[in-house]
Amino acid sequence: MTANGIKHNELRQLVRSQLELLLNQGNLEGAKALLVPVKPVDIAEAIEGLPESMQVIAFRLLSKSEAIEVYEYLDSAVQQALIQEFKRQEVLDIVDKMSPDDRAKLFDELPAKVVRRLVAQLSPGERQATALLLGYEEDTAGRIMTPEYISLKESLTVSETLTRIRSLANASEVIYYLYVTDASRRLTGIVSLRDLVVSSTEKTLGEIMTRDVVFVHTDTDQEEVARTIQRYDLLAVPVVDREDRLVGVVTVDDVIDILEQEATEDIYALGGVQSDGDNYFQTNLITVARRRVVWLFVLLITNTVTGTIIRSQEELLQQVVTLAAFIPLLTGTGGNVGAQSSTVIIRGLNTEEITDLGPGKVIFREALAGILLGGILGIVATVWAYWLQGNFFVSLAVGISLIAIALLASVAGSALPFLFRSLKLDPALMSAPFITTAVDVLGVLIYFNIARVILGL
Amino acid sequence: MTANGIKHNELRQLVRSQLELLLNQGNLEGAKALLVPVKPVDIAEAIEGLPESMQVIAFRLLSKSEAIEVYEYLDSAVQQALIQEFKRQEVLDIVDKMSPDDRAKLFDELPAKVVRRLVAQLSPGERQATALLLGYEEDTAGRIMTPEYISLKESLTVSETLTRIRSLANASEVIYYLYVTDASRRLTGIVSLRDLVVSSTEKTLGEIMTRDVVFVHTDTDQEEVARTIQRYDLLAVPVVDREDRLVGVVTVDDVIDILEQEATEDIYALGGVQSDGDNYFQTNLITVARRRVVWLFVLLITNTVTGTIIRSQEELLQQVVTLAAFIPLLTGTGGNVGAQSSTVIIRGLNTEEITDLGPGKVIFREALAGILLGGILGIVATVWAYWLQGNFFVSLAVGISLIAIALLASVAGSALPFLFRSLKLDPALMSAPFITTAVDVLGVLIYFNIARVILGL
Repeated sequence: MTANGIKHNELRQLVRSQLELLLNQGNLEGAKALLVPVKPVDIAEAIEGLPESMQVIAFRLLSKSEAIEVYEYLDSAVQQALIQEFKRQEVLDIVDKMSPDDRAKLFDELPAKVVRRLVAQLSPGERQATALLLGYEEDTAGRIMTPEYISLKESLTVSETLTRIRSLANASEVIYYLYVTDASRRLTGIVSLRDLVVSSTEKTLGEIMTRDVVFVHTDTDQEEVARTIQRYDLLAVPVVDREDRLVGVVTVDDVIDILEQEATEDIYALGGVQSDGDNYFQTNLITVARRRVVWLFVLLITNTVTGTIIRSQEELLQQVVTLAAFIPLLTGTGGNVGAQSSTVIIRGLNTEEITDLGPGKVIFREALAGILLGGILGIVATVWAYWLQGNFFVSLAVGISLIAIALLASVAGSALPFLFRSLKLDPALMSAPFITTAVDVLGVLIYFNIARVILGL
Repeated sequence: MTANGIKHNELRQLVRSQLELLLNQGNLEGAKALLVPVKPVDIAEAIEGLPESMQVIAFRLLSKSEAIEVYEYLDSAVQQALIQEFKRQEVLDIVDKMSPDDRAKLFDELPAKVVRRLVAQLSPGERQATALLLGYEEDTAGRIMTPEYISLKESLTVSETLTRIRSLANASEVIYYLYVTDASRRLTGIVSLRDLVVSSTEKTLGEIMTRDVVFVHTDTDQEEVARTIQRYDLLAVPVVDREDRLVGVVTVDDVIDILEQEATEDIYALGGVQSDGDNYFQTNLITVARRRVVWLFVLLITNTVTGTIIRSQEELLQQVVTLAAFIPLLTGTGGNVGAQSSTVIIRGLNTEEITDLGPGKVIFREALAGILLGGILGIVATVWAYWLQGNFFVSLAVGISLIAIALLASVAGSALPFLFRSLKLDPALMSAPFITTAVDVLGVLIYFNIARVILGL
């Protein structure tokens, strides 16, 4: 056996560099042969890397069944571009055979007119499955679930079940859990394939099933779905409607992508960038600018306030110009202390690690950390400022201001995310860029007032 | 059937609020009854929320088999605290029955002396399993894998395999994939439980197995292991040693935790906080301060440079004091533009979304975004600055500086993470706090020079 772990990585790189070359030479047979041993997700990646004009050509090299799998792995921007290039029949072949959850995701992105036409041409069963998913709100369990699962009756024996599975296995994405429902399709229990295999064949599902099932509702937020699967180490979680009827299943592989997407959104928010779940590197420059400029304007205006405060102190500054030199140090450090607090708190709220402690305890802890950090930095800054410019009173004003600003920053950085959450807003809005700028304004005010007192001006 | 999805959440909250109350009243029977219908992970959470003195008491209410499961879910700080409270025999009972990967994680945290004593007292099989895992470096596949999997020979038939599984299932964490190995324990193929169940019983494993197995090596970094499972939608990935012998398996539930931990590390880095994988909210204040103060010092010193530059311009500032008022606006906006670029690039590098494009293209794109954003903001800032203080030349200097600073910030924010990665350093070090501070220094220099030229000073 060769080292497949390495082989795969080499193959991926080889495919990406060779595919374009072969297509440029018009060597379609060569390209086809190149793709044979490659996994669908890797083919999708290679196609995404091609110039747009070549993507359709490469895609047509695939067999029908492979084409569907590869298509499901493509980025949504590429999916949309391809669908415009396809002939009518090609589109139908692919869309009809996609799994319903992937199809719903694609339909979300396509123009409503195109979706209506496509839905009309789907086979009846697929049309129903798609309509079901599209009927739920975005980012809920209903939208991301697959309606392809195996549900069985309690009275079935293990051996009957095994026979049934053999005939159903290919039609279902989820096979590791079997769901037991009653006459009105209500979920009554769950049997894992593991339970089934280790049980004696004459037992009934009712005898071996677990009755205490963890499940979610169709309107449960996707992040909560993900946290449920993560918390209980599940491979899939069943989704029920308001009447407790089983309607679908969310699988662990979708959950990984959801958690990653949520982490990206959090990270973007911390960096002051709006995110809408698209691949950033596939969006155009205007969209990029639009997603950033709003935040920048908010911060620009806040910064103007800082400027106004500084201008209002012109007469003080003219007397002791050296005071201006320490503004960046104070606001910069304050901003950084605040950013550290808000980062830790926002992440804690989002991963639910923080739930054990109340806001009071957490903010108090951050305040202590702020005083501690402010104290250490304040002493250093006082010495440093004295060494730099030799005026002891200015140095003292810098040091004392730094302690006050660090305390203020850590309290603001920890309290504002809680405040926002209690107002049902995303705590991540109170992230580093905002805290930094808010601390600037207050930091400058604190500094000038402390300086006035100490310098007796 | 009751609505379990809701019932679980209510139960969790009830357990957390009631457990301490019952223990305070000394009502141990009541506390025991309360915990009966609760899942181990939820019991663990409730115990973590108790005061330290009560944690042992609550823990002793559990049955032996449940105690082990609950213990595995506890945060490592609580695990360590508990182990010091336990009697010798209790410790052994738990540690011996933990799964090897969880045990290895615990041993990582305990003092070496305690670990040596515990290892000596383990049963021989468990001792070997633990020693195997502890022999690999931290954060590698070898360290996080479980050595409990089912490996079989090619010649076995499906029905023989099913019989075998029935006897092995309880001893193995992983059952959904069966691994096929040759005489020298080399991995030759993989059979999913699904394949097994749907195949006719007289076929051999050699006939139904998949030979093209995705696997990782013992020294593969845990993040790469996670990405492999995510990429190929696996439930588990086999781990082989240098001789391609199968030695363990990493499961998807561990991968979710790894990806979340890596996301937390990235987020902390973006906020200028060091992280070592512990639960932040369980660490003490000194550790908290230590993890933040290093960054703050680095930034303090960099900010001093900004201060020094401003002081060197004292004679310019004395002539046009109003220039000082726009320093926060310029450095603040520059910092925010840079933070946006670096956030997007660092996340892209970490999730491997960026791999299709080279650094050149990405940096060029960010530069264009910088000019675009700088242009918009520059025009607004010029008008705004004129309206605020009425000096056209100062306003013009502010506007032009803003364009230059935005360009600089977006180029620095996108180029530095790439540079760091090519030096084999973590790109996240070039995150918002650093970029913000670096842009401050250069921004002030640019501003003063542009102002000098425009004001003719």
